[in-house]
Amino acid sequence: MTTHESTQSASGNLSAVLLTDWYQLSMLDAYYRLGMEQTAIFEFFVRRLPQQRSFLLAVGLDQVLDYLQNVRFTPEEIAWLASTKQLSSSTLKRLASFRFTGRVFAVPEGTVFFASEPILRVEAPLPEAQLVESRIVSLLHYQTLVASKAARCRLAAPKAQLIDFGMRRAHGAEAGCLASRASYIAGIDATATVEASYRYGIPRAGTMAHSFVQAHELESQAFLNFARCHPQNIVLLIDTYDVVRGAERVVEVAHRLRSDGIRIQGVRIDSGDLGELARKVRAVLDRGDCKDIRIFVSGNLDEYAIDGLVAAKAPIDAFCLGTRLTVSEDAPSLDCAYKLQQYAGRPLRKLSQWKETWPGPRQVYRQYDSSGYLGGDVLACEDEVIEGQPLLHEVMTNGRRLCCAPALDDVRAFCAEQLARLPPAYRTLEHVLQAPVKVSQRQHQLAEEVAQIPH
Amino acid sequence: MTTHESTQSASGNLSAVLLTDWYQLSMLDAYYRLGMEQTAIFEFFVRRLPQQRSFLLAVGLDQVLDYLQNVRFTPEEIAWLASTKQLSSSTLKRLASFRFTGRVFAVPEGTVFFASEPILRVEAPLPEAQLVESRIVSLLHYQTLVASKAARCRLAAPKAQLIDFGMRRAHGAEAGCLASRASYIAGIDATATVEASYRYGIPRAGTMAHSFVQAHELESQAFLNFARCHPQNIVLLIDTYDVVRGAERVVEVAHRLRSDGIRIQGVRIDSGDLGELARKVRAVLDRGDCKDIRIFVSGNLDEYAIDGLVAAKAPIDAFCLGTRLTVSEDAPSLDCAYKLQQYAGRPLRKLSQWKETWPGPRQVYRQYDSSGYLGGDVLACEDEVIEGQPLLHEVMTNGRRLCCAPALDDVRAFCAEQLARLPPAYRTLEHVLQAPVKVSQRQHQLAEEVAQIPH
Repeated sequence: MTTHESTQSASGNLSAVLLTDWYQLSMLDAYYRLGMEQTAIFEFFVRRLPQQRSFLLAVGLDQVLDYLQNVRFTPEEIAWLASTKQLSSSTLKRLASFRFTGRVFAVPEGTVFFASEPILRVEAPLPEAQLVESRIVSLLHYQTLVASKAARCRLAAPKAQLIDFGMRRAHGAEAGCLASRASYIAGIDATATVEASYRYGIPRAGTMAHSFVQAHELESQAFLNFARCHPQNIVLLIDTYDVVRGAERVVEVAHRLRSDGIRIQGVRIDSGDLGELARKVRAVLDRGDCKDIRIFVSGNLDEYAIDGLVAAKAPIDAFCLGTRLTVSEDAPSLDCAYKLQQYAGRPLRKLSQWKETWPGPRQVYRQYDSSGYLGGDVLACEDEVIEGQPLLHEVMTNGRRLCCAPALDDVRAFCAEQLARLPPAYRTLEHVLQAPVKVSQRQHQLAEEVAQIPH
Repeated sequence: MTTHESTQSASGNLSAVLLTDWYQLSMLDAYYRLGMEQTAIFEFFVRRLPQQRSFLLAVGLDQVLDYLQNVRFTPEEIAWLASTKQLSSSTLKRLASFRFTGRVFAVPEGTVFFASEPILRVEAPLPEAQLVESRIVSLLHYQTLVASKAARCRLAAPKAQLIDFGMRRAHGAEAGCLASRASYIAGIDATATVEASYRYGIPRAGTMAHSFVQAHELESQAFLNFARCHPQNIVLLIDTYDVVRGAERVVEVAHRLRSDGIRIQGVRIDSGDLGELARKVRAVLDRGDCKDIRIFVSGNLDEYAIDGLVAAKAPIDAFCLGTRLTVSEDAPSLDCAYKLQQYAGRPLRKLSQWKETWPGPRQVYRQYDSSGYLGGDVLACEDEVIEGQPLLHEVMTNGRRLCCAPALDDVRAFCAEQLARLPPAYRTLEHVLQAPVKVSQRQHQLAEEVAQIPH
């Protein structure tokens, strides 16, 4: 796989420092002026899982580290900030050489996690750690959201080919590309998004559109023309007029093409009752001596639709996922946060109603049962000694990545292993109420102690 | 308002031609090889409105026209396409000088529209009109989605200040910025997203975060420090520990600051029962001789929550909208399409089950009643003479914009007028089943005729 991360790109300059909230600049300005530049520790976690999710997949770290390593203010941006007259001139001067100089600890991309568990910890001078909040949340939130949705689709159809068609209705350019990346990590096989293939090396897939059929006077002619132009990848769309008639035409065309040595790989159905139509089309193809032509379906598919079609044993070989994957239709956001856990050595917690947090830097210890399944997690203070595998590792120090990002296919393989080690109850589409997470005794004590501190 | 559209930006290069689906390139390649380059007419429309929407606002045209005017392949992109070995060498050669040379007709940004009504029509040689589909859909879909959601928030609280806090949980960088633009057009007053203010000149707003309070040992000290650093814009967050105690501290701090001539503008409540807490806080502030301090609320707000708080007469002056606005939580996608209406003079329609389309190029004629309210639309053939105001106008010819984009504040004013002319039933949060749209007799006839053509 070749990648082009550093070239002209859809989501543009990932160091765009103005992708932040105005209050981050106000607070940074105040911290500078007040001399509040001691080490702050922030953690990113999801407070509660959506009702329709039993686990999440952590994805987005690679983009976060790129952002942190490259975040800068351009002279134009500083001139504009000066024109707002809301920041002090000493702050503006310091912004010209602003760098992120901190340490980052994180779980590897593709890791399964649950509510309240930190997947990223930032340790840096308070103004730096504060300014980068909004973009870190943006990058981790969206990819985690989509990967977690995609994993459910994968679990619903372990053997079918799954293809991402979702760019056009994803929320903007960056979402379109990052959705391909996140869903590929989670087990989707290929993407239709050219930019995602160009940039991340994700395998491409594509069929044809109704417009191609319509632009020809006869459907059969459209099929023949497309096949002759693209003999290596022929998936014909058969629902522009009438699906069964379309399938019959595919059989005729397939026989004509055989003499030229051209083989039709598949047909796509994009409307109607997909299960019933797939059965009819399979019968037409089989009767017509086209048993090797595969059936692709598309149109508002998600894990629930896939699950229904698989349960009904519909003869479908490939599911093309679009909108409902890339907007995570049944849960289009996660209740996530990037919270200050400690400042200048003082562990901290929020006590806001319904939004209380655990204090101090934390670590997650994961234990496996004798069958190799995830047995349970312990949420502990960062410096506790607990049985199990610690999930957070140091990945950046002094604002520099400690190592290159792993290859995308390695992340994908790691993620598949994570899913395979989930206990069976978590791998169904039904929500599992109880996350397998305990909080350590010391973490409980610390929370009590911090709540007692006057403020 | 100053804007910086052409400088380094979050959503990057809007001409990024690879923001398309692979099949667009396969089809373009086939069209070139088959000599199918006559004029194609495509239209963008929404098939069905989400159940929770009675109307939509058309937004995104400005970005579409920028994209069409600038869309190019770079040499690196062509080299990469060549490496896939899936496009012919003659096609690759032509892509090096690829330009969009067509005409575009569209409704002005901020226009109210309904299901089936085209808001954009592209007339161009088939390969060009095809290739740009995915990005056009991406740009119109998302901004229309968010503007339509934002309009409902505006209608729920006609007098309150509404602020966009949604960047961090928007789906990626471009969505974060375009959400600010779309929601500003629809009537939101300001944004916290710095990049959106920098790029589009949208008024900025911002308060403070819990971390600022927590980084101080005492809440009162945090309030004093923030106020002294930012005397021109002081909105203090009072729910880090206890909202009522926080409000009492604001009163103390306000009196200390008065002697310095500093005035606290507002307090923000971000958790708990916002209506009940706002009442308690209002009482504390009023008793403390701080009647001029305004109350801001945030936390999972949307039009339904706002409507409930307004109906309960909660003493709230400003609503800060985040996630639920920028992901359009109750309807995170629109069932939209960009469909081939005519090729080489032949009007076309899809007959796919549940996805039939109207044929030929179309126009929407809008009629107003005697009170100035939108009385009804007629969906007609493009060349029909119908009473009412035609909504689609030519905005691009030979691939060049016909005029500059209107100023954002003019678009916003136009949109406010559009909302004011909506009949009252459409301005409530309840869904109105019947869209005020009729289809002309000739359009019906043409649809019948086209359906009879053999294919």
